[in-house]
Amino acid sequence: MTYDMIVYNGLVVTVNPDFDILKSGMIFIHDGRIAGVEQYDPDTVLPGSRELIDAKGGLIMPGLVNTHTHIPMTLFRGLADDIALDVWLNEYIFPAEAKYINPESVFYSSLLACAEMLLSGTTTCCDGYFLEDEVAKSVDISGIRAVLGHGVIDFPAPGVPNPSDNVKTALAFVHKWQDVSPLITPSIFCHSPYTCSADTLKKAKNAARSRGLLFQIHAAETKNERDQFLYKNKMTSAASMNELGILDENTLLVHGVWFDEHDIDIVAKSGARISHNPESNMKLASGIAPVPDFLKAEIIVGLGTDGCASNNNLDLFQEMDFAAKLHKVNTLDPRTADAKTILKMATIEGAKAIGLGSITGSLEKGKQADIIILNTSSPHLFPMYNPVSHIVYSITGSDVRDVIVRGRTVVRNRKLLTINTDDLFDKIQVFADRICAESL
Amino acid sequence: MTYDMIVYNGLVVTVNPDFDILKSGMIFIHDGRIAGVEQYDPDTVLPGSRELIDAKGGLIMPGLVNTHTHIPMTLFRGLADDIALDVWLNEYIFPAEAKYINPESVFYSSLLACAEMLLSGTTTCCDGYFLEDEVAKSVDISGIRAVLGHGVIDFPAPGVPNPSDNVKTALAFVHKWQDVSPLITPSIFCHSPYTCSADTLKKAKNAARSRGLLFQIHAAETKNERDQFLYKNKMTSAASMNELGILDENTLLVHGVWFDEHDIDIVAKSGARISHNPESNMKLASGIAPVPDFLKAEIIVGLGTDGCASNNNLDLFQEMDFAAKLHKVNTLDPRTADAKTILKMATIEGAKAIGLGSITGSLEKGKQADIIILNTSSPHLFPMYNPVSHIVYSITGSDVRDVIVRGRTVVRNRKLLTINTDDLFDKIQVFADRICAESL
Repeated sequence: MTYDMIVYNGLVVTVNPDFDILKSGMIFIHDGRIAGVEQYDPDTVLPGSRELIDAKGGLIMPGLVNTHTHIPMTLFRGLADDIALDVWLNEYIFPAEAKYINPESVFYSSLLACAEMLLSGTTTCCDGYFLEDEVAKSVDISGIRAVLGHGVIDFPAPGVPNPSDNVKTALAFVHKWQDVSPLITPSIFCHSPYTCSADTLKKAKNAARSRGLLFQIHAAETKNERDQFLYKNKMTSAASMNELGILDENTLLVHGVWFDEHDIDIVAKSGARISHNPESNMKLASGIAPVPDFLKAEIIVGLGTDGCASNNNLDLFQEMDFAAKLHKVNTLDPRTADAKTILKMATIEGAKAIGLGSITGSLEKGKQADIIILNTSSPHLFPMYNPVSHIVYSITGSDVRDVIVRGRTVVRNRKLLTINTDDLFDKIQVFADRICAESL
Repeated sequence: MTYDMIVYNGLVVTVNPDFDILKSGMIFIHDGRIAGVEQYDPDTVLPGSRELIDAKGGLIMPGLVNTHTHIPMTLFRGLADDIALDVWLNEYIFPAEAKYINPESVFYSSLLACAEMLLSGTTTCCDGYFLEDEVAKSVDISGIRAVLGHGVIDFPAPGVPNPSDNVKTALAFVHKWQDVSPLITPSIFCHSPYTCSADTLKKAKNAARSRGLLFQIHAAETKNERDQFLYKNKMTSAASMNELGILDENTLLVHGVWFDEHDIDIVAKSGARISHNPESNMKLASGIAPVPDFLKAEIIVGLGTDGCASNNNLDLFQEMDFAAKLHKVNTLDPRTADAKTILKMATIEGAKAIGLGSITGSLEKGKQADIIILNTSSPHLFPMYNPVSHIVYSITGSDVRDVIVRGRTVVRNRKLLTINTDDLFDKIQVFADRICAESL
């Protein structure tokens, strides 16, 4: 047969169930899927293929999976840092959202985020925000894979002036984008147990459950949030969500920084998944999620960057580095959060966490061809004894050379093929100039 | 007059005492020094200059100062991770050093480290290791600025088979490299208070003091080290060093992770400086240095990457990101370790910490021209409301475009002009292959 594409001549880190690593490998791609992963040597006669991509001795691995983003917030990158969380939210982020979040700004800011994610090796993201329809349009143009949820919250929000319409609006988004693109999977994103009533949570979860959709929700991000929830409800948010029946394998709990032993037990038993966002939790000083305990309880944990305003980038390679080091120093044990565990969190476990475990997150026959090629011929990547160590501790998003999503090359030699970034920068600059001029 | 070089048309972050930021500026350079920093606009008629460097709207800032490295250990990048500290040291690092550290490997590994540092915007490093003569040769070739100390330890070490020669060997290095190059400043590097006797420490400090040299020493890196020192000596290492009279403005204490209140008081009163290495302390699970307390006590604190084997890179931009976020989450206060404080740590405060505060670390008239230009036209750096936030939270070493040390361009458009990296990679690969083959 003639394949659509063959990627060859690179060290392959498959992240398959056996965690196979091929010193030099080749990957056959057809109809958007991986048709085979095999050893390669320079004498190999390659089968017929419409496209050949020579990795030139670099590193070939699955595209990364970012399990938690608010990609339109890329517009607010670095707008306000180093201030108390309530000041950050109430005096900067909420007013900025009220004033500057509109369909146009969401569309272009999302396009910017997709550009950044693709160029740093992320091929799948899981997003939740408002005006998500515009997010979906930009995602569609960029060629990234995404699980997208329109926000549900019991307050007026961009695009949902009347909170009583929140679930209806979220469902309208689902209906509009279901089956439009193989790269877009609609979802429901409830903001949190403290900003949504029990009724809203149940209604939203039922809507998600009946359609087999991922249900995303923030939980136990800060100590203050945990304390207030406990005070008002006489139980933790995890216990409350469990009672409401909204925890199951299709629920993604974001953060879980302040989950205690009992919460972890509840989450583990329910089968719900957790998105771990170490850089955001560090920068906002929210705390350190008990990730080693999540893993001990066999909870599926994926990595996420969170929104750009609290990170301030969408580079999952850096997120891996932070995750690995943070849990070592927090436990005072360097064996904690080893490189292999962290790499899995950023790939296959992340894919499982957002319901795409059978589709992406590893290089295996039958899976979608979501593949990245890294250039390892830089001083900061020499020598290389262990590619997994390099992926977690030495590589950054800037080392990504090529990016393939569902068999289509979207980044070649660090150039994004789907978006004209110069035009995009001009657009973003207009928004940013206005925000600066009005000196928010 | 005709300048040697003018760098113009970029946002200038000076890190001068007023922390001036010029929206668009130009820097005049003559005889290796900064002759002026001024506003620039497109109508400006530039004075005569032998060389003109257009920053093209990027960011111009002082080159970074890495206050603690063991640059030959770059050979061991990623050789062993995620294992207990004693296993890491005794089963991997010490045997690897005994077997593979020789003049040739030190020379080429140091060259590799210099390539990595320059390409990621570091223009000054402070190094301590053995066979430091070879380090100095590579530093000299690379064009980086460096404070270099030959190691003093009461055990046989590479190049010092007889420990009783340790101070003599360190001084021979000083004599050889004093006044050889304006970029190289010899120093004395005592390994630590627990691996050097009181006599060795005093002898080494006296040798440094009488010559006005920086005295570098590891201190209180791990809890175990602190506990054992206390048990043996009935006082902490800081108290002990104070009693021995080795703490003063020319002493650089590296790590200080386990300094308590009393230690901090001693260090502050002595005028000694501290090198903070957050990524290494995290990766080795040593602990979190009480940096906010150091700063409250008005101790001068610089940033360092430590050796590559415990990081696993030499990128100070990433180190800034880690430092800022680590102390926020550790204090549960996002106002801790703000971006400005952290940027100063990686530039002017670092320069002061290693005795070069009047020479480098900021863009000021009269200082040496150690300047870097960053390309900010990438999706991960859009939009930009605050350049200082970007430097700490969004930029990585890969965004460095040009590097100038003492008025000489050493990196232009991301190409290193002083070292042939392809040849260097071949050399390093030979060492690495041997290490792999002998399956250390």
